[in-house]
Amino acid sequence: MTTTDRTGVATLPMPDLSRTFPGPFPTSPHADRIQAHLGQWLHRFPLLGPPDARRTLCDIVAHGVARTFPTAEPDGLVLCADLFLWLTAFDDTYGEAAAAGSPARLVRRIQGCVHLLADGEPPGDAGPFDEALHDLLTRLRTRATAAQYLRVTGCLRDVLFGMLWEAHHLAEPDHVRMHDYLAVRPHTVLVRTLIAVAEVVLRYELPEEARNSPAVRQPESAVADLAGLLNDLGSYARESAKGVPNSLNLISLITRAQHCDIPTAYAAAARLGEEHAATARHGIDRLATSDSAPLQQHAEALESIACSYIWHIDHARYTKA
Amino acid sequence: MTTTDRTGVATLPMPDLSRTFPGPFPTSPHADRIQAHLGQWLHRFPLLGPPDARRTLCDIVAHGVARTFPTAEPDGLVLCADLFLWLTAFDDTYGEAAAAGSPARLVRRIQGCVHLLADGEPPGDAGPFDEALHDLLTRLRTRATAAQYLRVTGCLRDVLFGMLWEAHHLAEPDHVRMHDYLAVRPHTVLVRTLIAVAEVVLRYELPEEARNSPAVRQPESAVADLAGLLNDLGSYARESAKGVPNSLNLISLITRAQHCDIPTAYAAAARLGEEHAATARHGIDRLATSDSAPLQQHAEALESIACSYIWHIDHARYTKA
Repeated sequence: MTTTDRTGVATLPMPDLSRTFPGPFPTSPHADRIQAHLGQWLHRFPLLGPPDARRTLCDIVAHGVARTFPTAEPDGLVLCADLFLWLTAFDDTYGEAAAAGSPARLVRRIQGCVHLLADGEPPGDAGPFDEALHDLLTRLRTRATAAQYLRVTGCLRDVLFGMLWEAHHLAEPDHVRMHDYLAVRPHTVLVRTLIAVAEVVLRYELPEEARNSPAVRQPESAVADLAGLLNDLGSYARESAKGVPNSLNLISLITRAQHCDIPTAYAAAARLGEEHAATARHGIDRLATSDSAPLQQHAEALESIACSYIWHIDHARYTKA
Repeated sequence: MTTTDRTGVATLPMPDLSRTFPGPFPTSPHADRIQAHLGQWLHRFPLLGPPDARRTLCDIVAHGVARTFPTAEPDGLVLCADLFLWLTAFDDTYGEAAAAGSPARLVRRIQGCVHLLADGEPPGDAGPFDEALHDLLTRLRTRATAAQYLRVTGCLRDVLFGMLWEAHHLAEPDHVRMHDYLAVRPHTVLVRTLIAVAEVVLRYELPEEARNSPAVRQPESAVADLAGLLNDLGSYARESAKGVPNSLNLISLITRAQHCDIPTAYAAAARLGEEHAATARHGIDRLATSDSAPLQQHAEALESIACSYIWHIDHARYTKA
């Protein structure tokens, strides 16, 4: 296991993924181009006020997406980057602490998004988040097949619901069952959306039979679980360094469930992460050696999605206290 | 305009739909068979306790679905009926007043549904609602194309979100803007789900280009708006007769927006209903005379869906105080 030393926090174990997902991870040559585009898109749709927040977010989204789909063409990358910028900015603006203070306000905000996701027209008084989402959905519809569009918009609804779920539980984490937390996490960490977006960005389509098979579902779930867990380890460490660890976090849930201290919970989570990584690696390798081109492409997508989450937890957004 | 005389309520005007949607409405010869099936399905998945509530619900769902799709084959009708039984029982059990008391509880309940809608496995401790939904989704997946399945499951998410939206606003209806209410209503009245289910029940598929055209969207929206409005007129009269009119209702919203009394608001809503009906009639007639078979089938579906809502407001569930 590797260890991470953060200000104000005891050295906490991180999962050792050096054998399952060894770096360095490939990245797209278009990262700078994506970042420049994101700046322009944010100028058109001013989702975030402070210039510092804009720059940091554009940087992590551009470089994250460049690692998520290192072989993709620029037009697909840019669509994916805009979508993830929107989701992250929405969560930063309306989710988390802001939402916990008034879930009803978040419900009203999300209702506008649901209206657009359900093919409604933007309202006359649409703000930048509605306008930007409308722009995204129009572009997504142009690029995706009908099923791909519906799959992605289904995932977006689940992300928004996940934010609501979090908003209702931040204040009462004792009501949260581990099982429910683990079910919601792949949505709020956006990995399910990324998996759905992969086909649109990389232009392939899984046959329906394969999509619903254990051979595809198992590595998808393992990557999804790994992504949530890595994000939790990273964010818990970051929040702890600020002195306000998030109570809705796998680490906190483990300490409560197992009546243990933080380092013990961290170690348990790290081991779990190694198990998810091993399951993902096994399933991805099997898909990669199938004789179906879309399954091979899906294996490649799952691999780079996993790598992007591993890369993310070392990015400034997470390591800066 | 026709008038309806209900115990304890002044005579309130209802929209005159005798020229746009004249009855009597055709009904399926399989209504009794559907009703018998629903009884068995509720035996397998005990969603409702009181035998009286079961009987009433099975009756209205069976006869409603028989009018919604009068020409459909029994297997499609039965799937649709189970789905609508589930939605209605879920709302009766967890939505409305129960939810307003604890939106967080409804969020937790819905989370289990979202998990299944997002292809998750049923949990070990799944209750009858989860098990019944899993059964429905399995059957829907077998019968529908991938896009149809995703379209219906997207609608189901919107219905569940609509229940949450309602739960957050029942206690503070003054925060509700008319625009938002009208956007949510087609989801909570289940008409958007019915429109999506129609293709699965009647086995046709709209070409994507047609689906996104004004020629299809306009009558769909008119039927959706008409359905919500009729349901509001019916339920307001029913609740008023009990002395507890629902504050989240078009009538209440009109009285607040226009500072008018109930009969004036009712008259305004009735006129609006007539306008929606005229728009729906015009759009349906245009679709019905197109030279595309799926557009003609869609016209037929929209027509009978509209008729089923007109029929519904006279059913016992609404007229019994």
